[in-house]
Amino acid sequence: MSTFDALPTVRFAAGAMRIIDQTLLPRRHEVVALSNLDAVCEAIRALRVRGAPAIGVAAAYGLLVAVEEAFAGGGPVFESGVDDAGNVAPSRVARTPSASLPDLHAVLARASDEIGSTRPTAVNLAWALERMRGRWESDADTPTALLAALVAEADAILAEDLAMGRAMTAHGEALLDDGDAVLTHCNTGGLATGGVGTALGVVFAAHAGGKRVHVFADETRPLLQGGRLTAWECARRGVPVTVLVDGAAASLLASKRVRAVLVGADRIAANGDTANKIGTLGVAIHAARFGVPFYVVAPSSTIDSSLPTGASIPIEQRAAHEVLGVGGVEISAAGSVYNPAFDVTPAELVTAIITEQGIHRAPYRFAAHP
Amino acid sequence: MSTFDALPTVRFAAGAMRIIDQTLLPRRHEVVALSNLDAVCEAIRALRVRGAPAIGVAAAYGLLVAVEEAFAGGGPVFESGVDDAGNVAPSRVARTPSASLPDLHAVLARASDEIGSTRPTAVNLAWALERMRGRWESDADTPTALLAALVAEADAILAEDLAMGRAMTAHGEALLDDGDAVLTHCNTGGLATGGVGTALGVVFAAHAGGKRVHVFADETRPLLQGGRLTAWECARRGVPVTVLVDGAAASLLASKRVRAVLVGADRIAANGDTANKIGTLGVAIHAARFGVPFYVVAPSSTIDSSLPTGASIPIEQRAAHEVLGVGGVEISAAGSVYNPAFDVTPAELVTAIITEQGIHRAPYRFAAHP
Repeated sequence: MSTFDALPTVRFAAGAMRIIDQTLLPRRHEVVALSNLDAVCEAIRALRVRGAPAIGVAAAYGLLVAVEEAFAGGGPVFESGVDDAGNVAPSRVARTPSASLPDLHAVLARASDEIGSTRPTAVNLAWALERMRGRWESDADTPTALLAALVAEADAILAEDLAMGRAMTAHGEALLDDGDAVLTHCNTGGLATGGVGTALGVVFAAHAGGKRVHVFADETRPLLQGGRLTAWECARRGVPVTVLVDGAAASLLASKRVRAVLVGADRIAANGDTANKIGTLGVAIHAARFGVPFYVVAPSSTIDSSLPTGASIPIEQRAAHEVLGVGGVEISAAGSVYNPAFDVTPAELVTAIITEQGIHRAPYRFAAHP
Repeated sequence: MSTFDALPTVRFAAGAMRIIDQTLLPRRHEVVALSNLDAVCEAIRALRVRGAPAIGVAAAYGLLVAVEEAFAGGGPVFESGVDDAGNVAPSRVARTPSASLPDLHAVLARASDEIGSTRPTAVNLAWALERMRGRWESDADTPTALLAALVAEADAILAEDLAMGRAMTAHGEALLDDGDAVLTHCNTGGLATGGVGTALGVVFAAHAGGKRVHVFADETRPLLQGGRLTAWECARRGVPVTVLVDGAAASLLASKRVRAVLVGADRIAANGDTANKIGTLGVAIHAARFGVPFYVVAPSSTIDSSLPTGASIPIEQRAAHEVLGVGGVEISAAGSVYNPAFDVTPAELVTAIITEQGIHRAPYRFAAHP
């Protein structure tokens, strides 16, 4: 198995969540500290931190930020043992604030509601918050024990995300040969996760293993996660990348220059229907027409077994200004915009779904996430 | 038949070609005068004037500009009778320069070569230049007669373009009902033609006839002709318009909110294969999948009967900076870009082709353009 360094996309240290601010890339690579709940929610809403697995991790650490904010003064409550590379040493409670268990529960419940309402589509957000709730509702007979359980669970969510990234990219890498070109949509690298990546991580794993792989990156309007973030990650790792406008993907796939399409997911229904960044459905339809395999790469935390199909996945509608402008430049004066952040690709267009558990093909029988 | 005013997209007056500079819209609506051959070629290359029918008209008037430039001094050679609305009164030769017929032939041949090499895909450019060449090579026994034939032919190309626009939009309008929504790609309104429009002109004709029609406009990266120009034209005429990123078209068509897709064309092969703005192929594939009729609207000057299929249509590759930036804002630092300006939609995905002659369905038997 070929490894590569993880990006410190979301980490927690010294009483704050630290994220690479993805709205500033590729111009500036800047880590910002989020030290209150409003800042955490704003960062998720504004896509400073984005990607379904990454916002799961951010939701978990966001609860720790809420505790730090509620009981500020006297130094950080939590001391994290996670370093930038994602090595997880035991974290600990540095200071137990003078708060009752009901006080803590109230802070956590409110924070969970607020974080949970930031973005509706990626199931990882709700999944991470539910995991955290499970700990504070059941493992807490003292405030210190509750806090220790919380920080351990948040670290575990990150550690598992990184481990799932290593495993799924190793499974996916086997599908690529030396010399292959792949098409990606949106950003599915370290920036979309705890640091390893999903679909783009597959390419990085192949590259780390010595295979020459070329990435064609859909720029992915409106927010250009492909042109901005995928191109930046590829350049950083020395992987050759060619950017195209989303409308050129059909022409590229028709040209037979691409071995496979690799995309991530924001929520996968039990039947394999996959919600992902707007434009994914179109790429899947083109891939099917031109006979190019279409792979979804995602951790099992992205699977929502409670939904039989993708029809009931909630689709976030985002603001008009994302479409009407780019980087502060106004493009259009149109008063009305259609701006769903996601679309749903039916399972019939998906060649296989790659998780940390392996390569799944229809009919899907996903194992429950531990 | 319902009419609406034509835009003065390309006109000729006082020794210069005057165009609405489409790179400045929607911020500034500015008419620029092109008074030498280099300026004409630059305007076509830089898409200050664009759209297959419009650049056909620009090519014809560009030859008059070349004559004015070559024999400058003493006032304009040509006096055009065309007004902004496209009413064509007899134009005339105001001054015959002291030049031999071979001198004039040399000027025209060089100008035709230069204009003809600006953009390779739209056949209207070569078609208009060939019409002009036919006049100077056959109708010219004196310099004055040659010049009179040239200005009459250029005016005829514009007048026919406007008439074809009126006819094809009237044919197309019959396909739309009150309350329909349509999806468009790129800009196919007055700005893409002598002033009436092709696909978007169909909507304007329906609107002028009292039908309520809603336009969903693909923004059409990289140069945003949909977001910038289609939205501007719709707003100007009071037609409701909703802009979407190109990647959202599949989701929109899946939602069944759209009655038809209407696009223009840059070159149509004898079998109906259609080269048009990059992204058109993808929209056609989606329309077929979701059962939405896909109509191509173009004048017969866009049909290239010399090509049996679309496989041999030359596809222009454009510069990387169009993809890597928007309005001066740098998006990406990627070194490599895939930026074909057009793609080819196979005839099997086209429901019908609407020209000034009527509504054509496969197998296509196009009448030659007069």
